[in-house]
Amino acid sequence: MVRPGGRSARVQESVHAAVRDLIAESGRDALTVPQVAARAGVTPSTIYRRWGDLQELLSDVAVERLRPEAPPEDHGSLAADLAAWTELFLDEMASPAGRAYIRDALLGDPDGSNAGQCSAYAADQVEVVLARAVARGEAAPPAETVMDRVVAPIMYRILFRPEGLDAAYARRLAAEVLA
Amino acid sequence: MVRPGGRSARVQESVHAAVRDLIAESGRDALTVPQVAARAGVTPSTIYRRWGDLQELLSDVAVERLRPEAPPEDHGSLAADLAAWTELFLDEMASPAGRAYIRDALLGDPDGSNAGQCSAYAADQVEVVLARAVARGEAAPPAETVMDRVVAPIMYRILFRPEGLDAAYARRLAAEVLA
Repeated sequence: MVRPGGRSARVQESVHAAVRDLIAESGRDALTVPQVAARAGVTPSTIYRRWGDLQELLSDVAVERLRPEAPPEDHGSLAADLAAWTELFLDEMASPAGRAYIRDALLGDPDGSNAGQCSAYAADQVEVVLARAVARGEAAPPAETVMDRVVAPIMYRILFRPEGLDAAYARRLAAEVLA
Repeated sequence: MVRPGGRSARVQESVHAAVRDLIAESGRDALTVPQVAARAGVTPSTIYRRWGDLQELLSDVAVERLRPEAPPEDHGSLAADLAAWTELFLDEMASPAGRAYIRDALLGDPDGSNAGQCSAYAADQVEVVLARAVARGEAAPPAETVMDRVVAPIMYRILFRPEGLDAAYARRLAAEVLA
């Protein structure tokens, strides 16, 4: 019994791991497809066939790195949960690694599906926070409002207007959407 | 009397025009630096020296295309001015050309200065709308609040979450930031 996609998933995992290791060792500017292929133990044509080019491969790796590792923490109230999640989200996204992943995710993404996946990760986390509030009997704004008022300003400023992105800003956005 | 930067400005203008013409004629995928140089009547090394590579040149051209052509129209009240400006901004940015310029501006922009310029264009327009309201004696929110509540959601959704970007959405953002 071979799981469908088993080989494909193993190729993806080894190629992604090769990209991460090579970037950690010598930075992204030196990265080439033949180098990634050699490290991953596949042929360059396997990579070109599956990812098109290096930029699309970097975009896939970036999206994988932007996947949240755990659901938002439960601090007992919507205000506390949203403030804590927003602060963590800003911290991760505005870090040098976060900024590089966001750029990579956008750049090698001709059809927008990787950018959409990044946004879906954030929306899923927001929905967990809001559903928990509703289960407690708290009033909660729609998830799309939180995307507009909390996630969008953080992502916009990271890309276009990078001053003043600190924890106080994150907490203010979280407080204002609930006001 | 030769204006300082006169030759430099002429080179920039002819190279930008060559890029715009060649993209209009045969699309951006076929574009190469030698082709742009030939059309602009400069050497390829002039382009490489000044712009580094094609992506940085495309980013500069995109920022130039994203520069607003006129101040926001005066409709007699802050609510009407902001609604009209937001609707126009969404319309321009979410158009196929606008999306392509935003992507180009971000991609060939290693130091973030072109993205910052795009954001400054929007902030300048917002400030004109708000200053006009203050001159009329109307109460107006801070410009950074309008950036967070109106400009940021539009730009975030264009890049990451492109559904539902219509005039009604623009008007709703404009109305809510004034509520």
